[in-house]
Amino acid sequence: MPRLCKPAMNAPEHVITAEETLEFAARAHAGKPQLPLALRLIRNTGVQKRHIVQPIEMTLRHPGLEERNRVYEAESKKRTPRVIEEALANAELRARDIDALIYVSCTGFLMPSLTAWLINNLGFRFDTRQIPIAQLGCAAGGAAINRAHDFCTAHPGSNVLIVSCELCSLCYQPDADDIGSLLSDGLFGDAVAAAVVRGEGGVGIDLERNASYLIPGTEDWISYAVKDTGFHFRLDRRVPGTMEPLAPVLRELAKDHSWDVGKLDFYLVHAGGPRILDDLAKFLDVDRTVFRHSWSTLREYGNIASAVVLEAARRLFEEPPAPGATGLIAGFGPGITAEMALGTWAADDVPGTFA
Amino acid sequence: MPRLCKPAMNAPEHVITAEETLEFAARAHAGKPQLPLALRLIRNTGVQKRHIVQPIEMTLRHPGLEERNRVYEAESKKRTPRVIEEALANAELRARDIDALIYVSCTGFLMPSLTAWLINNLGFRFDTRQIPIAQLGCAAGGAAINRAHDFCTAHPGSNVLIVSCELCSLCYQPDADDIGSLLSDGLFGDAVAAAVVRGEGGVGIDLERNASYLIPGTEDWISYAVKDTGFHFRLDRRVPGTMEPLAPVLRELAKDHSWDVGKLDFYLVHAGGPRILDDLAKFLDVDRTVFRHSWSTLREYGNIASAVVLEAARRLFEEPPAPGATGLIAGFGPGITAEMALGTWAADDVPGTFA
Repeated sequence: MPRLCKPAMNAPEHVITAEETLEFAARAHAGKPQLPLALRLIRNTGVQKRHIVQPIEMTLRHPGLEERNRVYEAESKKRTPRVIEEALANAELRARDIDALIYVSCTGFLMPSLTAWLINNLGFRFDTRQIPIAQLGCAAGGAAINRAHDFCTAHPGSNVLIVSCELCSLCYQPDADDIGSLLSDGLFGDAVAAAVVRGEGGVGIDLERNASYLIPGTEDWISYAVKDTGFHFRLDRRVPGTMEPLAPVLRELAKDHSWDVGKLDFYLVHAGGPRILDDLAKFLDVDRTVFRHSWSTLREYGNIASAVVLEAARRLFEEPPAPGATGLIAGFGPGITAEMALGTWAADDVPGTFA
Repeated sequence: MPRLCKPAMNAPEHVITAEETLEFAARAHAGKPQLPLALRLIRNTGVQKRHIVQPIEMTLRHPGLEERNRVYEAESKKRTPRVIEEALANAELRARDIDALIYVSCTGFLMPSLTAWLINNLGFRFDTRQIPIAQLGCAAGGAAINRAHDFCTAHPGSNVLIVSCELCSLCYQPDADDIGSLLSDGLFGDAVAAAVVRGEGGVGIDLERNASYLIPGTEDWISYAVKDTGFHFRLDRRVPGTMEPLAPVLRELAKDHSWDVGKLDFYLVHAGGPRILDDLAKFLDVDRTVFRHSWSTLREYGNIASAVVLEAARRLFEEPPAPGATGLIAGFGPGITAEMALGTWAADDVPGTFA
């Protein structure tokens, strides 16, 4: 059964604290009507710090889409190799053992996808399948795991490498003062993450079932407005309320698998924001601490988009559950789409190889 | 075995002939050094006409990336439903029978992907998987067929709808005079295509094997430069020469399947341009007429990017081969990536249902 091995994550070296975010917002919106709302939104995120790829002064400038995308390309090439190397080591595989590369990122646009550069430069085979996904936003981490699961099922014995490169700070829009922008200015952080789904062997989460769900009639609630200045994040005020219609879907998915969604051993869910996690706990009737890996990811790095579920999974591996422990993985993003998976902790195939 | 059913295609109502293209180029490059090259490139394409979503006068103007992308969204919503309806009818399925939607398009960028709108408006189930791919360019038609093949293998009995929406005219860059732009101005056309891959039953091409190949060290040869004015197509002069290294890969793929690549019954390959088709014939040692569905697609519509292989397949269905006929499907695009499949014509499961 396809198995999600321990992810690797790299948070960039430039750090911005919650206090600094508040200071910058106070300066950016000084004397404007949206200032109190901006400060309240930032405080409510619960984010203590974020990591970004450039110093804050450069991040706050907008040098144009062309230059922004050039920075995206340079930074992604600089930062993905070390994370990939670590993810491969975690899975005890080499680049040439990988059969498909799933690259997810919604914060820059390259064609060809970075997959071509990775294959040419990191030792992957030239017949490696490339599956680049840019338009699933924060749900793409879950989607990547699910498509890797499908690929390994369709091609038994194959291995898939997932790379998530989310440089959210490169989508900062200095002139935007709508609620989506005000919130994202205080919420999103940068991160690069990677993980291998092994077709056979390894230590990690056996992927048993996957599913997707689009919440009807919400396609405008999370979106990008594409402008000459790049991607502008748009967020509807109703988004945090979406956990109410999603909870029954998660409950049903578990039930179809003969599991009780309220009694799983681990939960690796997208940390879209504190209200998302609190509401999901409420509607699933679980204690909010079951999302502790999502909470700590949010607190330490902000919302790192598609990388959240991989980083939450990495934290689970740091305190591994007992073999047979059952769990849920769920990414939420534009659509509004939920990409969900059910899996079981497994370490039985290759005893002793997990350091 | 997953089966590719008859595709549907819609070419927009605005037509530009080869003569008109030459006239526009003569006017656009009047008195400039690149004029002779531009005219020669246009003549060499062999394209007799192209179909575009807006009148030519509007196509030649650049109203900015934001407006261009707004047009992309409006036109894709206007033009995909009828093609999807026809593709579903061809496969004798309804929207609710579809388990995954693969949407490929490199000529506009929406987040969420159009898949969310399609699910909300055309009767697809809300648990339909969404697989949007934007970064494989012209290779994405082949990639979509291959990922649909994989999905149906991983989820037996499921059905996948592929939608290709390539509005290439919305990437026209009036100020560009590099060779890639000069060529693309005379080569690319707009089209929307769709096809179902059925997990079971139907009439069409049984998908038996798929593969991908990246030509080493060519990642800069076909690419987009992302600028404030949108996507700028970049093409290296060496691209037409890539069929020489690709032919042995196709040969090996067929051999691994116990087939002879020079003796297949049908070939559905990307019509990147006349030199691509001629060189591929030469290096595969086949007569150039074996690519007749690609040639006629190129002549009548230009290079319609990821939609080419679907339109070439549609033409095959108009003159269906005998059951058991063997064939190759291959899309070529940025990377440089080839997405390849081998399949057999099959009509045995449901006799009499193919009108």
